Amino acid sequence: MKLLLVNPNMTQAVTDAVLAAARMRARPGTELVAVTGDFGPQVIGSRAENALAQHGVLELVARHADGCDAVVLGVSLDTALWACRELLAMPVVGMTEAGLLCGATVATRIGVLTYGARMGPLYRELIESHGLGTRLAGVEALDVTPQQTFETPEQVRAAVLAGVHRLVERDGAEAVLLAGAAMASMADLLQPQVPVPLLDGIGCAIVLAQAMASLQLPRARRGSLGATGGRVVHGVSPALAALFARPA
Amino acid sequence: MKLLLVNPNMTQAVTDAVLAAARMRARPGTELVAVTGDFGPQVIGSRAENALAQHGVLELVARHADGCDAVVLGVSLDTALWACRELLAMPVVGMTEAGLLCGATVATRIGVLTYGARMGPLYRELIESHGLGTRLAGVEALDVTPQQTFETPEQVRAAVLAGVHRLVERDGAEAVLLAGAAMASMADLLQPQVPVPLLDGIGCAIVLAQAMASLQLPRARRGSLGATGGRVVHGVSPALAALFARPA
Amino acid sequence: MKLLLVNPNMTQAVTDAVLAAARMRARPGTELVAVTGDFGPQVIGSRAENALAQHGVLELVARHADGCDAVVLGVSLDTALWACRELLAMPVVGMTEAGLLCGATVATRIGVLTYGARMGPLYRELIESHGLGTRLAGVEALDVTPQQTFETPEQVRAAVLAGVHRLVERDGAEAVLLAGAAMASMADLLQPQVPVPLLDGIGCAIVLAQAMASLQLPRARRGSLGATGGRVVHGVSPALAALFARPA
Amino acid sequence: MKLLLVNPNMTQAVTDAVLAAARMRARPGTELVAVTGDFGPQVIGSRAENALAQHGVLELVARHADGCDAVVLGVSLDTALWACRELLAMPVVGMTEAGLLCGATVATRIGVLTYGARMGPLYRELIESHGLGTRLAGVEALDVTPQQTFETPEQVRAAVLAGVHRLVERDGAEAVLLAGAAMASMADLLQPQVPVPLLDGIGCAIVLAQAMASLQLPRARRGSLGATGGRVVHGVSPALAALFARPA
Amino acid sequence: MKLLLVNPNMTQAVTDAVLAAARMRARPGTELVAVTGDFGPQVIGSRAENALAQHGVLELVARHADGCDAVVLGVSLDTALWACRELLAMPVVGMTEAGLLCGATVATRIGVLTYGARMGPLYRELIESHGLGTRLAGVEALDVTPQQTFETPEQVRAAVLAGVHRLVERDGAEAVLLAGAAMASMADLLQPQVPVPLLDGIGCAIVLAQAMASLQLPRARRGSLGATGGRVVHGVSPALAALFARPA
Amino acid sequence: MKLLLVNPNMTQAVTDAVLAAARMRARPGTELVAVTGDFGPQVIGSRAENALAQHGVLELVARHADGCDAVVLGVSLDTALWACRELLAMPVVGMTEAGLLCGATVATRIGVLTYGARMGPLYRELIESHGLGTRLAGVEALDVTPQQTFETPEQVRAAVLAGVHRLVERDGAEAVLLAGAAMASMADLLQPQVPVPLLDGIGCAIVLAQAMASLQLPRARRGSLGATGGRVVHGVSPALAALFARPA
Repeated sequence: MKLLLVNPNMTQAVTDAVLAAARMRARPGTELVAVTGDFGPQVIGSRAENALAQHGVLELVARHADGCDAVVLGVSLDTALWACRELLAMPVVGMTEAGLLCGATVATRIGVLTYGARMGPLYRELIESHGLGTRLAGVEALDVTPQQTFETPEQVRAAVLAGVHRLVERDGAEAVLLAGAAMASMADLLQPQVPVPLLDGIGCAIVLAQAMASLQLPRARRGSLGATGGRVVHGVSPALAALFARPA
Repeated sequence: MKLLLVNPNMTQAVTDAVLAAARMRARPGTELVAVTGDFGPQVIGSRAENALAQHGVLELVARHADGCDAVVLGVSLDTALWACRELLAMPVVGMTEAGLLCGATVATRIGVLTYGARMGPLYRELIESHGLGTRLAGVEALDVTPQQTFETPEQVRAAVLAGVHRLVERDGAEAVLLAGAAMASMADLLQPQVPVPLLDGIGCAIVLAQAMASLQLPRARRGSLGATGGRVVHGVSPALAALFARPA
Repeated sequence: MKLLLVNPNMTQAVTDAVLAAARMRARPGTELVAVTGDFGPQVIGSRAENALAQHGVLELVARHADGCDAVVLGVSLDTALWACRELLAMPVVGMTEAGLLCGATVATRIGVLTYGARMGPLYRELIESHGLGTRLAGVEALDVTPQQTFETPEQVRAAVLAGVHRLVERDGAEAVLLAGAAMASMADLLQPQVPVPLLDGIGCAIVLAQAMASLQLPRARRGSLGATGGRVVHGVSPALAALFARPA
Repeated sequence: MKLLLVNPNMTQAVTDAVLAAARMRARPGTELVAVTGDFGPQVIGSRAENALAQHGVLELVARHADGCDAVVLGVSLDTALWACRELLAMPVVGMTEAGLLCGATVATRIGVLTYGARMGPLYRELIESHGLGTRLAGVEALDVTPQQTFETPEQVRAAVLAGVHRLVERDGAEAVLLAGAAMASMADLLQPQVPVPLLDGIGCAIVLAQAMASLQLPRARRGSLGATGGRVVHGVSPALAALFARPA
Repeated sequence: MKLLLVNPNMTQAVTDAVLAAARMRARPGTELVAVTGDFGPQVIGSRAENALAQHGVLELVARHADGCDAVVLGVSLDTALWACRELLAMPVVGMTEAGLLCGATVATRIGVLTYGARMGPLYRELIESHGLGTRLAGVEALDVTPQQTFETPEQVRAAVLAGVHRLVERDGAEAVLLAGAAMASMADLLQPQVPVPLLDGIGCAIVLAQAMASLQLPRARRGSLGATGGRVVHGVSPALAALFARPA
Repeated sequence: MKLLLVNPNMTQAVTDAVLAAARMRARPGTELVAVTGDFGPQVIGSRAENALAQHGVLELVARHADGCDAVVLGVSLDTALWACRELLAMPVVGMTEAGLLCGATVATRIGVLTYGARMGPLYRELIESHGLGTRLAGVEALDVTPQQTFETPEQVRAAVLAGVHRLVERDGAEAVLLAGAAMASMADLLQPQVPVPLLDGIGCAIVLAQAMASLQLPRARRGSLGATGGRVVHGVSPALAALFARPA
């Protein structure tokens, strides 16, 4: 089985972290291809960067998804997730979505921890848009940047641990999702110090993508996710233009 | 990997159908153990039979779960699902829950088709209790009994197909879950005639249980799903009494 | 009028407390029959015990409801409430449900106080399942066991009082329901020290059951609560098997 | 026990129907006092008339509630219900509220039938405001006026019956509330032709008001329903001005 | 353009504050007519006063709306808003509604600050009734009376400022609405000390009413807001009786 | 006052229709600048095109918003609306959002009519994301393309009219929003044949943008919409890169 991991921001260290976390959970023999954005935001830390990154995600899947069995979006805002599902004939899984869906089988309510004080509302909106708002215990948005994960890892881990405990104690979280591609390898490290399951979005996305691929469901021919076919777009890569133009 | 399939009703044909569907989706090398209730309802077709079957599920997991890697509940009302999660230290997955969670990655809204005109409200309540009500397109409760699946399969398949089309056309379902252990092998048969993905609860539960087992999440030590330990119950099997009494 | 009070756990002291509280509110001349579980949990303090107790409730109503005018479930998780409504041709009222319905006429939002730190989520889920989540101010789950009510009553009352005040001050509760059969007589004792109405679930259930009995509504012949009739179950008491088998 | 029945519109025939229905359900020995508005709408058939009738309700309770044990609002929009609860130290029950609360113990979802095609949204809003929207199966607003109930009763009953059947068949209502003071005696008449319980708002309000009165709950001293005390209003009856001015 | 400003309470200072705030935001050349209740509550600080004031609002619009282009309700509970929309053929805008609708374009979630500790639940209910509950960050109900705004303005402003900061810090409000006609001129004063937009209900209502007037939408001839026409009410002013009686 | 109208698709005829509709509602003296996308989708008729168009919107506002008083997004999926609010220091209004907010003052529930059978779910999701789901009567997604509006206008108008009537009759819509930039001038034409207000998204957006501009609210310095400042993006126009890089 071959999985495409898509990181639409331009920070290779994030792609590397995503790939490393993916390797931990992929079944033996799985081929993993990880790609990084070549335009757009250095890191996604705002609504506008996330809007821009949607184009980037489309470009990456247009160029790299052919021949894969499933796509995992390695960006914690599940950027362009449903657009990819419409464009592609294979399973596409978002890492925050996957963390919540897997978490839903081990916890009544899930806490979500992320980086960036201003990002809390975006995760709440994302989780509501997935229809999972009633399973959310709370969001803890740390005043930390993704870069600090690589530069001052110990301080960041201490802050993450404190945030996790607030979600458990204050909000009654029965599991906690570490939502951030930069945190991709942290759950295993911190789990021994946490009294509830720690969910790693990438790990959850990998096992869920493999599960979905094995179901071999056909593509819808009806509804808002069926192939559109024959759409005309300009000023994008030939691969993306061709993907839009492909007949339904 | 070894999975326990639990059918709390007393109809062996249902267990057989569940096991057959599970074999279709389990990874090569997976050991499947399917057990059938030895008291309680012949089939579950009412609220009271479902209430009674909760005891039956507990007895079956108490006697058979040791040594397994995960449990799949082969009963479409996800009977005693959260109780099992509290009692056991391994992943437990319900078939309707799994159908919805997997379906959530291929459809914005999911239709649910089941047997028994009076059972519609129970599925709506179940789906609401999973916090997934906003992902539900509609419920189609056919005037069919589980037994008819085995006795007049062609008529039943025609009725199922008509119900699926109502969910797609009338309710805008982008995927349809066949919710009923007795329908466990029907999705593959009918898929060619249906324009959206058909979800088989058992198949979804198998791949999701294997996904969850591979995540190797620890058991919670906090919250409503942590081990209770040391509980005293009477008048049940020694295995179940021992499971309740086991220290946390 | 004759009312059946059902306590599915095996602690007679709880049954006694329920019966005493019921006597305080029943109309003069009401006959009260209180029955205690003869298998299952000693006390219900977990999801699994509650699942098991559903069988116990069915057995008790099967043996004792004939000839009664209504049934009151003296178990604060309203265990098997809707199953009983389906099985029986008389009003059935749950004590937490009744506390909320009566409370809804004296408060915009109701606080719920119960025993057992891990039990908070179960009450939230129960109240949501009753469709009354928007009327809930908050849940306060004390770190107290039902037994302590009988062993160290003064400490328990102090803890209850503190919890009630948190619900009023922190959560804006305009009435507080003491949810726990073991607390059945505590509301009257504590009311003078509390600035909002204290609701006793048993008291509310008694007056509501008598109200419903006096309405003399017919049993539904349609929908998910109509008599099923002719259902086959095995391995239960003859009374319960006969109740299931009774024609619609 | 003495109950005040308040009809804020100026149609005596409605008051008479309310009183007759109340007598059917009140316990023996209950004293019933029914009062009719002396200003405001002839009948309430619009938002503006309902707004105006709030003043009327306040005037009626100010003049007549002293010495009563509880108040029943005999107006199906539960006009000024929470205002009365704030002003008065006794239970106050609305007829549609009571129909829903009682109905919640016999049906998972309740249909509501009322008069006036334009009135459907008002009932939906009312039921949402009671926090009971998830228990609503549907609203059927007939193109009938309250007066027609008294003038062409047979045609009206046929229309009501057809509407009830639509709620049951189309919307899955497991009980139906006849919401309209003018329908106060119709439920008993039509019940034999209806396969689910028919709820009469006045009957439900009477038994619920008597239940609440027997609980003898104290008035809140906190929250939005506690006595305000010492409020100054002008241009109203001395009784109402005095009720507002009464110290907390 | 001519706008009617309606203050149904009897405190002229509130009307003056409303008018002054309206002048700040009305387009040049707008004629503003501000009217004060001549019966009913001195100030609205309870549910019952708000119920009574509905009559007052109807009287004021009946006497003063003819010849105006739109109506602004200068009462922060949006008293009788929908009744006015049904009665009048021109735009009618409530000040709290307008604050929320305008705020919805500058903030994901809005905090609401008001006077009167007991009034918090009323604002929550109002906002829910507008269908805007998911946009509400929180309600802060200060222990302040409207009169104190005029008597001890500096203390009141300090209390308001502290409340605003709680809404921003604790509740994540991205804008704050000062909900209270008596606060009508305070937003501009306090804005420099607040890190998010401060919304003045009157200002928002003025610009929204002018916007709606310029759309020149026709009155509905269907639904719950269409003209009723020909309704009979007694004991009210000739103007109000005539407005009710006007043909549809 | 100067308003920027942004059409991110590449069809000039849509921009022209948007501009014409805007001119009808803008106050005298308003300067209107309408810009069209120079890359991306020819028309937006799918999730993926909408994802791609977010980049296009950002480019257009980066190049053209300086010196404007407000921005109106002339694309009925409100594409990149919140991203623009984060990037820009002026009011930004979406046309569907504006139609709903204005409609909320003239109707309890609003119907939405749009083009493209597959687009229905996207509008439902958009309206839910605005927190306005409870105000939605229904969505009618016609099997019509935007181009047909310009090519076969009479057939399209007939289809639109039929769809509007379904929303009114079947779903109880009290106002109907024509959601589609290509329909920008149709509301005035069809209004005489429709019994409820017809809302034109562009018209509503223009009056709401002018209203918001006149409020002169400051930009938030806190929360998810405050200026980010200093963000690094690559591979975009210098104007957009500069807008991202601008200090907070």
